[in-house]
Amino acid sequence: MRPLFERVVIAGVGLIGGSLGMALRRRKLAGEVVGFGRGRPNLEVALAQGAIDRFTQDAAEAATGADLLVLAVPVRSIARVATDLLPHAAAEALVTDAGSVKAPVVAALDGVITPPRAFVGSHPIAGTEKSGAAAAFPTLFEGERCILTPTASTPASAVRRIGELWQRVGMRVEVMEPGDHDRLLALVSHLPHLAAWALIDAIEGERVGGRDPLAYSGGGLRDTTRIASSHPEMWRDIFVDNRAECVRAIDELAERIARLRKLVAEDDGEALERELDRLRQARSRIPAPRDRGNPA
Amino acid sequence: MRPLFERVVIAGVGLIGGSLGMALRRRKLAGEVVGFGRGRPNLEVALAQGAIDRFTQDAAEAATGADLLVLAVPVRSIARVATDLLPHAAAEALVTDAGSVKAPVVAALDGVITPPRAFVGSHPIAGTEKSGAAAAFPTLFEGERCILTPTASTPASAVRRIGELWQRVGMRVEVMEPGDHDRLLALVSHLPHLAAWALIDAIEGERVGGRDPLAYSGGGLRDTTRIASSHPEMWRDIFVDNRAECVRAIDELAERIARLRKLVAEDDGEALERELDRLRQARSRIPAPRDRGNPA
Repeated sequence: MRPLFERVVIAGVGLIGGSLGMALRRRKLAGEVVGFGRGRPNLEVALAQGAIDRFTQDAAEAATGADLLVLAVPVRSIARVATDLLPHAAAEALVTDAGSVKAPVVAALDGVITPPRAFVGSHPIAGTEKSGAAAAFPTLFEGERCILTPTASTPASAVRRIGELWQRVGMRVEVMEPGDHDRLLALVSHLPHLAAWALIDAIEGERVGGRDPLAYSGGGLRDTTRIASSHPEMWRDIFVDNRAECVRAIDELAERIARLRKLVAEDDGEALERELDRLRQARSRIPAPRDRGNPA
Repeated sequence: MRPLFERVVIAGVGLIGGSLGMALRRRKLAGEVVGFGRGRPNLEVALAQGAIDRFTQDAAEAATGADLLVLAVPVRSIARVATDLLPHAAAEALVTDAGSVKAPVVAALDGVITPPRAFVGSHPIAGTEKSGAAAAFPTLFEGERCILTPTASTPASAVRRIGELWQRVGMRVEVMEPGDHDRLLALVSHLPHLAAWALIDAIEGERVGGRDPLAYSGGGLRDTTRIASSHPEMWRDIFVDNRAECVRAIDELAERIARLRKLVAEDDGEALERELDRLRQARSRIPAPRDRGNPA
């Protein structure tokens, strides 16, 4: 079968970019996968891991002849990397990203990338708290969701081809308004990350009879704060770029904490139990994890 | 080798009580393990699981000849169950519990249980979000911490024997003031539970373009809220019985959330990244999980 793309440039071969490269190569979906990035050591890891066929730190060398650019760099760097690579890419090259915030990325690239080229915003909702090519694995995407955020001006054929890209590495693809995406992710991803960091913050400075409370953590705190090990630079970008939705979500969380605090402080055990029971039931709406061979 | 105790009554054969029964029987640490509880179906599961040798719902039948009573019932029920069983127990019976809050339990039982009997408060810090005898497994305690909270009036020999009990099922035993225990656990256990429930609360009522955000959860939210599936009645008791420390911890969390919110709202990416990096490092102080064959 013909590969989907002849030459794919993956800019940023971290967890997402590296895993995509592995999946593309394993499934023979790309004629060639070229790694491009700032850090040579990470590119070397990606090469050794089999995530890319070759790498370069030169934009022209990377993008020449490329019919797909995947911008798997932190959200704030996406526009800059696109500007570096785009002049050298094929005339009808498609461009996508893997950013966790979509409205600002779409706004920055929608006007810059024009027919016959096209940009389709992607957010493959997959990941672990780890980062870098060393953490990549080819089944990362399997069974997980990918949200595409085309606009009115995005050619339908481009949406179809980028959708096929993610589908072929195992994802369930869904199309959404960029703003809806950002609101949704603020709730189910950005807010939990902030909560995990705040929880560590509330505990880490305390001492109880000279003891470090964190040393007494069980599985509960460990799981609740797993994502507090996530990449600070990447998450700084996400919070700031999705500022309005994040602040709205944080305010909602603060209000809910205040409500539960009130029930505890007022010793209203009956109402508290009712609430906890309701929330336990709501929590069961979270889909069960899929077995995707995630080693993390 | 002689068993540690001739007849152990486990009141409440849920996750903790049932797992203790399994561990005691497997390691031949008790001549006999008797289950006692409110719910006959759960007692039957415990028997079928091999957590107990027999069960009864009659206090006299349960406690007669017992040299150890383990009160593995919700914190609020501990004193009542002790009062029911104690008159029938052996003259020198020891009593312990497995409650997640210690000051009120110790205060309630310390005066009631008098020499030659003795009460030693225990908190085996082990568990999953599941409950009931069906969730019990004999290796639950292995490698985990157990905190004992004797008072000035607790006989040293009783502390030693209860410590040996938990050690022999695989726990690392540590002695602590009841108040220190409650402050510590409010931080590393009770606060994360409340945060997980509040997080669900902040998300569950929202709709984004008609979509239920919870259906879009990835591994991050799933792990962060795993403990929101915990037992509402048990947790109602914990929050209310450890009210002062929980409120203090909740206020600390609210303050930390407000601080992070400010950095996001003010677009202070540099300070935000510094904070996230600091918290990521602090999070690494949480001990790695021990492999204890936990099937959960």
